[in-house]
Amino acid sequence: MSDRITPDTSIPNLPRLRGFIADFTRLVERVGDDEAALLDAGRLLLADLIAADDWLPEAYARPDPVHYRQYLLHCDPYERFSVVSFVWGPGQRTPIHDHTVWGLVGILRGAELSQRYDLPREGGPPVAFPSEILEAGSVEAVSPRIGDVHAIANALPDRPSISIHVYGGNIGAIRRSVFDPLTGRRKPFISGYANSALPNLWDRSQPVPHAA
Amino acid sequence: MSDRITPDTSIPNLPRLRGFIADFTRLVERVGDDEAALLDAGRLLLADLIAADDWLPEAYARPDPVHYRQYLLHCDPYERFSVVSFVWGPGQRTPIHDHTVWGLVGILRGAELSQRYDLPREGGPPVAFPSEILEAGSVEAVSPRIGDVHAIANALPDRPSISIHVYGGNIGAIRRSVFDPLTGRRKPFISGYANSALPNLWDRSQPVPHAA
Ligand SMILES: [Fe+3]
Ligand SMILES: [Fe+3]
Ligand SMILES: [Mg+2]
Repeated sequence: MSDRITPDTSIPNLPRLRGFIADFTRLVERVGDDEAALLDAGRLLLADLIAADDWLPEAYARPDPVHYRQYLLHCDPYERFSVVSFVWGPGQRTPIHDHTVWGLVGILRGAELSQRYDLPREGGPPVAFPSEILEAGSVEAVSPRIGDVHAIANALPDRPSISIHVYGGNIGAIRRSVFDPLTGRRKPFISGYANSALPNLWDRSQPVPHAA
Repeated sequence: MSDRITPDTSIPNLPRLRGFIADFTRLVERVGDDEAALLDAGRLLLADLIAADDWLPEAYARPDPVHYRQYLLHCDPYERFSVVSFVWGPGQRTPIHDHTVWGLVGILRGAELSQRYDLPREGGPPVAFPSEILEAGSVEAVSPRIGDVHAIANALPDRPSISIHVYGGNIGAIRRSVFDPLTGRRKPFISGYANSALPNLWDRSQPVPHAA
């Protein structure tokens, strides 16, 4: 779907991710209370991060044979935001779920099918909006204010897709919900993370070919 | 030397380290420009962190057969400070070195021999101050203002010692110096880190027995 060139990632361009984290920290410090302003500016930062696919270390790009994976890349020390790599193998999808905090979804590699839902106030099954294909480079936002319930699936039948998500909290630790597609029944869940180790972005003792 | 009880660390008390990182971030935001105030308050935070030895994940406590190891545990997103686990096997020691930024050294496990030096203005070999044994629980400070040149060795002949260091920068990336003990000749070095992955402190989806 995307014909962008994927550079060699054997030496990942970590300065790119370091720069994003510092920029996003500054943004949250500046406008953390103003969700609309934060999503406007955060969308641009995330679009810039995913405009090149040369920085994600391979360990955080690996699909699981059965389930989609979420790898934490960075968590703000105050848990004001987190950055997560989601990897979908062919045929993999999330359940219908909410977030309870703002979120930004940027497609890094491949393509994803985004399906938003409305939860009828009177109960019953979630009502699907028209679905959308998100190509590499595009960014989508969710939040309780602008629409918080969706499901995401890999749109490619033959290879993994990867998106980079930023959330307004430590998303893996937040109590939120999944929804039964037929009944709308809400089930609490806490997603956790697939990884017990984060990338060390801070070792700059070796030559960094991509250094900014 | 120390007779403190070492609790089971098979499920490390990560909330302890998370709390330290948040507290230290607040401290740096509050008094980052005032080194004396920062060292005074930072010393208390570090003493509190190392008062129990129940939180360091085993992967960051492993000695190397030949050289001491430095494992980055956390780096501030603006690189204002870093937290490092130093592990010395029996007989292992650092060269004589400086830091160029403030540093706090807190002994977590075992005991270390601290040897401070003065660099004569006229050149020549570093002049040793009386050496000191640092027992588990103690905290020492260095900086260009209060004395920045030292060497540290494991004080135990038969098992590893571990200290937790906090520095006023991303210490593994800072250009600093080692000194020849005989001539005082200065050689530039950048230490880097032993680890390409950091502990994921942020997965709180599983029960946390030590939760604060
Ligand atoms: Fe989602
Ligand atoms: Fe030192
Ligand atoms: Mg002098």
